[in-house]
Amino acid sequence: MMVEALDLVEKLRIRPGEQIRLSDRDPRDKCGLAAKEEAEALTRTCAQEIDTLQDHLYAEGRRALLVILQGTDTSGKDGTIRGVFNATGPLGVSVTAFRQPSEIELAHDYLWRVHAVCPRRGTIGIFNRSHYEEVLVAKVRGFAPKEEIEQRYEQINAFEKILVENGTTILKFMLHISKDEQAERLQERLDNPEKHWKFSAGDLDDRKHWDEFQEAYEIMLNRCSTPWAPWHVIPADRKWVRNAAIASIVKATLEAMDPRYPEVSWNPADFKIP
Amino acid sequence: MMVEALDLVEKLRIRPGEQIRLSDRDPRDKCGLAAKEEAEALTRTCAQEIDTLQDHLYAEGRRALLVILQGTDTSGKDGTIRGVFNATGPLGVSVTAFRQPSEIELAHDYLWRVHAVCPRRGTIGIFNRSHYEEVLVAKVRGFAPKEEIEQRYEQINAFEKILVENGTTILKFMLHISKDEQAERLQERLDNPEKHWKFSAGDLDDRKHWDEFQEAYEIMLNRCSTPWAPWHVIPADRKWVRNAAIASIVKATLEAMDPRYPEVSWNPADFKIP
Repeated sequence: MMVEALDLVEKLRIRPGEQIRLSDRDPRDKCGLAAKEEAEALTRTCAQEIDTLQDHLYAEGRRALLVILQGTDTSGKDGTIRGVFNATGPLGVSVTAFRQPSEIELAHDYLWRVHAVCPRRGTIGIFNRSHYEEVLVAKVRGFAPKEEIEQRYEQINAFEKILVENGTTILKFMLHISKDEQAERLQERLDNPEKHWKFSAGDLDDRKHWDEFQEAYEIMLNRCSTPWAPWHVIPADRKWVRNAAIASIVKATLEAMDPRYPEVSWNPADFKIP
Repeated sequence: MMVEALDLVEKLRIRPGEQIRLSDRDPRDKCGLAAKEEAEALTRTCAQEIDTLQDHLYAEGRRALLVILQGTDTSGKDGTIRGVFNATGPLGVSVTAFRQPSEIELAHDYLWRVHAVCPRRGTIGIFNRSHYEEVLVAKVRGFAPKEEIEQRYEQINAFEKILVENGTTILKFMLHISKDEQAERLQERLDNPEKHWKFSAGDLDDRKHWDEFQEAYEIMLNRCSTPWAPWHVIPADRKWVRNAAIASIVKATLEAMDPRYPEVSWNPADFKIP
């Protein structure tokens, strides 16, 4: 029995004004997906449809889709991009990973570098981390004064509203994993030489602040899931659930956008190939 | 019998100093590929290997690959990106389409906007058109004085050498189609409503300058195929030959780069997950 994309949207989306507790959300929830094989088949089907819809979006050239991925270390942001968008290919899709800001970036407001890489019309942009780090790590680590961080939630909502009113659809996904699952994945990075490059001692340090990070995520979800740019909490302990859920929601969103080949104002019969 | 990638490199690469005539190169050449099915299987195999090698390149994080695609309208630049790089996905691969320069871009030297979007270490960058337009359309249409255009060949060689010496491998592909094939593809854009958006009356105008463009391409190939950044002339009337040839050369190049998972200086046993 196939899970319907709209059910997933309904189930995983944070309604504006809703006050959720992250601890009420099970990172191992299967979202009604019976088994891994079924979920992977669903992901593949959605990925193909996303590819087709992305073609239309590109041809239409009037609107963009911005997909924001947030989650703690090892929550699977890279894996989601591979799992969901690999069939879409790089044409008309751009991925931006936000790292430590450079000196030039720090010399501007925190949204400056974000705005510069928002997707152009006709394309899908994927943010691997985003401006939300400015109310997550910045909050937990005290990178900015409390009053400034307090202002950022509304600033981000206003910034995203500007993007949406000017033709960008925004989907935000928080990849929700359990503390136990993170331990397993970090251990895997230590045990498997092919994963050593992904390991950073800083990740262990962040893990000591697990509860503070969870609280910061919760506040972010409750204050920044807006009618124009909703947050979704994705159960991400199981990679196949994570991919199927995100693929379904992206597909349903693109379908609702309904991008079309543009109508042209000229008459093909008027042109002769010289 | 499978065509070997190295044979294709040898056959299609312009040797530095060589003076080729484009009219000696058959756009319908099959490059030793017997049939479409064989070529498509080769492309798929190469695409999978490119995907794996790209993962290693990303993990290594020290070098980049820049793939430059040039060719007249309808020569298949977008189709090449779809056909060769779709299995690679958007993670660690960026595509830049060069359009009419903006006012800000025109206020700088012509390589300024190009340098800004060169691929970061660990990634593959694909240029759909490139700085070579500055010795192609700029030459044919007279967008710059002859003396300036004359200087650009050496400037471009010097610019590319800087990139190469700093860790970027460069592959340049000219998609070579016949005038008849272009007529068919332009007609298809007029006949098929789903392709109307790709049609531009300017393409017909460029077609009237076909011979001048071919000459400009020939000069470009002869003056800018360097030991550090070689040009390849790809027979592109048949899409399956085009894709198989480019996929083979990209795969062989990445294999020769031999990207590796980085060695780490720390001892995994020294870390305990808190």
